[in-house]
Amino acid sequence: MKQIESIKEFDGFLNRYTHFSDSCQCEMTFSVYLPPQAETQAVPALYWLSGLTCTDDNVRVKAGAQRYAAENGIALVMPDTSPRGDEVADEPDRYDLGKGAGFYVNATQEPWVKHYQMYDYVTAELPNLIEQNFPVMAGVKSISGHSMGGHGALICALKNPGAFRSVSAFSPICHPTQCGWGQGCFTAYLGEKNQSDWASYDAVELIENGASCEHILVDQGTADEFLTEGQLQPEALQKACDDNGINLQLRMQDGYDHSYHFIATFIGEHIAYHTKALSQK
Amino acid sequence: MKQIESIKEFDGFLNRYTHFSDSCQCEMTFSVYLPPQAETQAVPALYWLSGLTCTDDNVRVKAGAQRYAAENGIALVMPDTSPRGDEVADEPDRYDLGKGAGFYVNATQEPWVKHYQMYDYVTAELPNLIEQNFPVMAGVKSISGHSMGGHGALICALKNPGAFRSVSAFSPICHPTQCGWGQGCFTAYLGEKNQSDWASYDAVELIENGASCEHILVDQGTADEFLTEGQLQPEALQKACDDNGINLQLRMQDGYDHSYHFIATFIGEHIAYHTKALSQK
Repeated sequence: MKQIESIKEFDGFLNRYTHFSDSCQCEMTFSVYLPPQAETQAVPALYWLSGLTCTDDNVRVKAGAQRYAAENGIALVMPDTSPRGDEVADEPDRYDLGKGAGFYVNATQEPWVKHYQMYDYVTAELPNLIEQNFPVMAGVKSISGHSMGGHGALICALKNPGAFRSVSAFSPICHPTQCGWGQGCFTAYLGEKNQSDWASYDAVELIENGASCEHILVDQGTADEFLTEGQLQPEALQKACDDNGINLQLRMQDGYDHSYHFIATFIGEHIAYHTKALSQK
Repeated sequence: MKQIESIKEFDGFLNRYTHFSDSCQCEMTFSVYLPPQAETQAVPALYWLSGLTCTDDNVRVKAGAQRYAAENGIALVMPDTSPRGDEVADEPDRYDLGKGAGFYVNATQEPWVKHYQMYDYVTAELPNLIEQNFPVMAGVKSISGHSMGGHGALICALKNPGAFRSVSAFSPICHPTQCGWGQGCFTAYLGEKNQSDWASYDAVELIENGASCEHILVDQGTADEFLTEGQLQPEALQKACDDNGINLQLRMQDGYDHSYHFIATFIGEHIAYHTKALSQK
């Protein structure tokens, strides 16, 4: 693991690292914000999974999250959205497949299978690396994300009961097996006919098949163009949660779009929500 | 004036416009954040001048200022840093001359003189346009900025006593006639021999020649590479203020760099500072 950047912010440090990932078989980049409290004690960690086209950089520049992380003494862990490098399979003409679009699944199909193992990366390899190398409390972590990363946060929490103290999402792709973005990536990464593989990475299907968690917080803007397009389908998540006794707090935020300006508006409330769960003994 | 974007943020609206500028003789783009209070009353305005390479977009995405503007009921006005367009003179290989580097002066030299009239644009044309078209209080405005824009904020306030209720800056280019960035632009825009023109756009020289203002707030990171390079020279501003009875609050912020992460850390304090001045009857 090699530190490539360290920027002081809100009296803590926004650091960036590269390392060779065993899961993804390539150099991966991630950022960690360590609040000032981390200089003297171990702190809880909030993992943030980003959306299509993003790297680790978008959230750290645009969300305004570091202020709240510093106030609450929470580390932020910000992975990239896909494997990277010249040797990594890609569809350069598409923003919604290949690099920047890992979809937080373990690919099974050629040419993706070698590097696109983002599910293992964000749920196992990266947390292990973080807990071994940073002043964070072992196992005291929560997860959130945006759009494709909101999908990622939901499935990571649903598939790993107890691993995350809390889960939230902004504008998540709730039902990827039933929308264009998800179908495109799942077909490529998981194969056209592997419907059970598909279901194992779909929040709605996971819940319908018995996966559960105590509580989910979701913010969704009503002026989000991708909501209208049917890419996000929060109503399917609401139905699955209602049918299966999961306490979903779905907040339809009037007039907000899909951008980081929307995230910036409500990230403070999400961090307060996670801080509460992360502070419980 | 044409609205090209409107994004809801912190219950207010981040809007973007283009208009033909009489000063710059080209289409100019600017952004305005209107806090929720502006829906029912006129609000004060804080002008933000950005640094080299920026457009109106950097600050609105990276600084986290809208949160504080919404809390305090302040509009943010964010102009571009130079004229734009295919017909506008440029040095495409340089980030520190031409487009993105207007330096907030009125150029007198060819080929810059036709379009590079940024001083008139930000001190007269844009405020008039804003006060005619937006729910802002006439004449109740303050100014701040970063780096080249910090220089801009200082000279706009010093050259227009009473026009701005308060002035602050992050990492300003305090003494452009004595640093590489300033000398490069002043030579091009104002001519090599026009030393009195040069002095009229240099905060230190303006103060030494009698310009004044009640109070100036400046934040400067100690780990700023451009401080070490001698581009910023806050010590010259300090000396000029000390010698001429100006109350400069220069805060050397330990370990902070030149980036928007630094700005994000302290922008809340700057907006509180301006809000206090803007709220006085």
